[in-house]
Amino acid sequence: MGSVSREVDEWTEEPNLHPKRRPISAAQRGVAATSSSEQFKTKSCKHKPEARRWHPYMSTESTSRTGSTLKNAAKHLSNPEVISLGGGIPLSDYFPFEEVILRPSSLDNLNDGEKTSSQTTLHATKHDIADGTSEYDLSVALNYCQGSGSAQFMRWIVEHTEILHDPPYADWQCSMTVGNTSAFDMCLRMLTKPGDCVLADKYTYSSAVETAMPLGVKFIGVDMDREGMLPDSLDEILETWNPEKHNNARKPSVLYAIPTGQNPTGTTQSFQRRKAIYKVAQKHNLIILEDDPYYFLQMDEYVDGASASEIHSPVEFLKKLVPSYLRLDVDGRVMRMDSFSKVIIPGARLGWITAPEQLIERYKRHSDVSTQSPAGLSQLMFFKLLDEHWGHEGYTRWLMHLRKQYTMRRDFIVSACERYLPKHIVSWEPTNAGMFQWLKVDWEQHPDAKDKTAELIEEEIWLESISTGALLGCGTWFRASKDVPCNEVFYRTTFAAAPLPKIEEAVKRFGETIRKVFEPKEEN
Amino acid sequence: MGSVSREVDEWTEEPNLHPKRRPISAAQRGVAATSSSEQFKTKSCKHKPEARRWHPYMSTESTSRTGSTLKNAAKHLSNPEVISLGGGIPLSDYFPFEEVILRPSSLDNLNDGEKTSSQTTLHATKHDIADGTSEYDLSVALNYCQGSGSAQFMRWIVEHTEILHDPPYADWQCSMTVGNTSAFDMCLRMLTKPGDCVLADKYTYSSAVETAMPLGVKFIGVDMDREGMLPDSLDEILETWNPEKHNNARKPSVLYAIPTGQNPTGTTQSFQRRKAIYKVAQKHNLIILEDDPYYFLQMDEYVDGASASEIHSPVEFLKKLVPSYLRLDVDGRVMRMDSFSKVIIPGARLGWITAPEQLIERYKRHSDVSTQSPAGLSQLMFFKLLDEHWGHEGYTRWLMHLRKQYTMRRDFIVSACERYLPKHIVSWEPTNAGMFQWLKVDWEQHPDAKDKTAELIEEEIWLESISTGALLGCGTWFRASKDVPCNEVFYRTTFAAAPLPKIEEAVKRFGETIRKVFEPKEEN
Repeated sequence: MGSVSREVDEWTEEPNLHPKRRPISAAQRGVAATSSSEQFKTKSCKHKPEARRWHPYMSTESTSRTGSTLKNAAKHLSNPEVISLGGGIPLSDYFPFEEVILRPSSLDNLNDGEKTSSQTTLHATKHDIADGTSEYDLSVALNYCQGSGSAQFMRWIVEHTEILHDPPYADWQCSMTVGNTSAFDMCLRMLTKPGDCVLADKYTYSSAVETAMPLGVKFIGVDMDREGMLPDSLDEILETWNPEKHNNARKPSVLYAIPTGQNPTGTTQSFQRRKAIYKVAQKHNLIILEDDPYYFLQMDEYVDGASASEIHSPVEFLKKLVPSYLRLDVDGRVMRMDSFSKVIIPGARLGWITAPEQLIERYKRHSDVSTQSPAGLSQLMFFKLLDEHWGHEGYTRWLMHLRKQYTMRRDFIVSACERYLPKHIVSWEPTNAGMFQWLKVDWEQHPDAKDKTAELIEEEIWLESISTGALLGCGTWFRASKDVPCNEVFYRTTFAAAPLPKIEEAVKRFGETIRKVFEPKEEN
Repeated sequence: MGSVSREVDEWTEEPNLHPKRRPISAAQRGVAATSSSEQFKTKSCKHKPEARRWHPYMSTESTSRTGSTLKNAAKHLSNPEVISLGGGIPLSDYFPFEEVILRPSSLDNLNDGEKTSSQTTLHATKHDIADGTSEYDLSVALNYCQGSGSAQFMRWIVEHTEILHDPPYADWQCSMTVGNTSAFDMCLRMLTKPGDCVLADKYTYSSAVETAMPLGVKFIGVDMDREGMLPDSLDEILETWNPEKHNNARKPSVLYAIPTGQNPTGTTQSFQRRKAIYKVAQKHNLIILEDDPYYFLQMDEYVDGASASEIHSPVEFLKKLVPSYLRLDVDGRVMRMDSFSKVIIPGARLGWITAPEQLIERYKRHSDVSTQSPAGLSQLMFFKLLDEHWGHEGYTRWLMHLRKQYTMRRDFIVSACERYLPKHIVSWEPTNAGMFQWLKVDWEQHPDAKDKTAELIEEEIWLESISTGALLGCGTWFRASKDVPCNEVFYRTTFAAAPLPKIEEAVKRFGETIRKVFEPKEEN
């Protein structure tokens, strides 16, 4: 049995928010220029081991990719003397946008109730690179781009990944993605074939299940407790794997994990739990797909509506975060999917993956002939905000602000639940990260519990709640597969999407719904 | 044998650049709101036949898609009374962008040599919808979106499609895409299975071949002449299809076509040619994937460096365009892929497909669990420019400008070829659309032609040309498959990507390369 061979400590080194940057060469700044995330690492990886080899895990689709002939030919353009009559790449003269101006939110007044508007503006024209005013401009950002994204914004991503996760193996790399949903789809096509099974939490992100299903890939639900996935349950499924019980599926080699603020249950795996799961992954040689959009929305424990312990510095904030799987990844078995959707904007459709070079190389080849790069304007707006304007420290201050806001919102919904929900029917564990509060309904107290299934009662409550004007998510939507029994009733609520008074009103309506459905005589 | 049942005339009606718009309801304007392209058609389709049924053509992957549970639930939010605690959708309060300002190019001075800078600015904040100043704003554009895109920009796309192509069947719809490369990948996954063959021009877009290959889908090259694909060759391949000669592949049901400014050969199918190909498609019941990014880059014939006939009005411009396959599509057998990459910017990663509702519905379900929507800022910038600022007429004026520019560039490269290339070795047909000039090299005049293959000589010339500083594309890169014999030597050049003096210099260098390689004694 394998083990985490080097004990990874929580932040033995102080996070360095001002790493010494690596330069971007003139050739790497150009239109559709090739670059590698490797070159932007600020720390040496020489003392680290190489990742395991994953080629036997790759699908036929993935191994047969030859990549893009045209994008390969573009490497000759790194010689500035070479004139390209090769690619059908339009000149920026014919782009009908002369300038883009962004007005970002100010970091100065984030903690005051009254948010004063920022006077800062961030500018981009077609000539900023030529003029020497910026390393990135509209002539490059609005043109074609390599599938892995531009060198300009990739540098920030690599530095950020190093500051936050500092993967303990040498050959890690990054590639931009058009979001975690797409990244997951592409990872599945790389690592599975029809008939395969993927391991996941018993209740998991429904969109991930729906992405896998048409590929002939089935999720297998692992039991959970208040810290999410149970390592013993994971180990048992793998130890006792019998293909005959799973339509002749081979033993799974992929684990899908949402370790922080899990969707839908809101659970967060502790550091100990992560280490235990990683050990099981080592024992059975699993690849872990770490889907972690809520990583920065970690909160203090809920304490009777008065949590919100103060965090005073960006470094203190970072050191409070539970280490990711990537930070534990001595073997190079984690493909981490990072998202800006919950911490900047979802509409950029820009995220990134971090994984061993072998896997990133396959991913990039797939991007080149499918999604291509994230939109250039998305890359540009993030570059302007995160690289040129805020830097890593400013971004961390923004994340501190979000932590405070989401903590306040979590406190608000939990306190509304306490006030409006009948506790003998509805119960919950206050969530510690992310956007979701999971509610359990004791359906067996329903007057018709003997005649109706839990699933029918779940739907009845859901529809009744909509008719009173409160839309929740049903627990059954999130089952890893139809094999997860429908013997419990849960609802997923979010404290992210509505203004506070509306959240209160919706919880109140849901409480009324529960009372009406469970105590029909009183209501009629 | 089928036939084009209603004769489609070239523009029997005058194109109407100011159609009477259909409204977008308040609910359809909201975050991740559902909408259908159907509702934005300005003309009645009642008199038109329904599309054929294509369900038997769909792959198992595609037919087994159930779509996104969470996005389905969002339909309940069309009732403004319902408060959502359902989706993990962040509030725009937490988007760190307060305003986006775009300065577009001015349409006024396009024809003067001196382009004066536009003073117009296009603004978007988070509150424009609430303030009533716009139907689209940052609160919506920067948030999540349905896979098919926002209603706001979809309306413009549907109107544009109706003005340009007015499909002659009733149930056509549109969905936005993240570009034609991704759309083609998704269409293949919808319509083919491993082992299938897809029909295409003998020389075709290499990225399309490379997208198909890892899916186990092979291209079959159809012979071409100066108008592109030959209908008789297409018919013969299908008539004489013998699975045993194609690794037991079933008879192809998909035709991949680049009808205008074909990549790489630059050929454009005439209206007559399109009708003839469509008839063969009817006879063998093919679906046509019409990949048409160069549609608006149609030019007048090259006449000794003095083409550039004047076009005086937007309507005149539109009426000069060769009708698309979509415009001929009485059966609903065309999936047309439209791109902004060559006429606005490539970096938006935003295009759209038009096809029968059955196929669009499957496409949308796939988007919802993979690429999701195009980036919101891309949608917003196109909406601001094309819908709120230029309108259909202004956009057409922009396209007229591009026609003029690309005609001038085509004239320039052809005239450079005439001056610098040895005509007894290199020959060409001046291209009439798009970005590419295809050059044929009579390799048999090479001094080592008896000992070397055409492919070796092609590579030798290519490398020699790079060493002199001119990068071209090799013809063999674009072969539909390895079955297309390497008995000719071609190069693809583009007149789109480099400034004019550089194009001249590169053609000159290529001419020197040819002379050096073909007449080594004179050089040494």
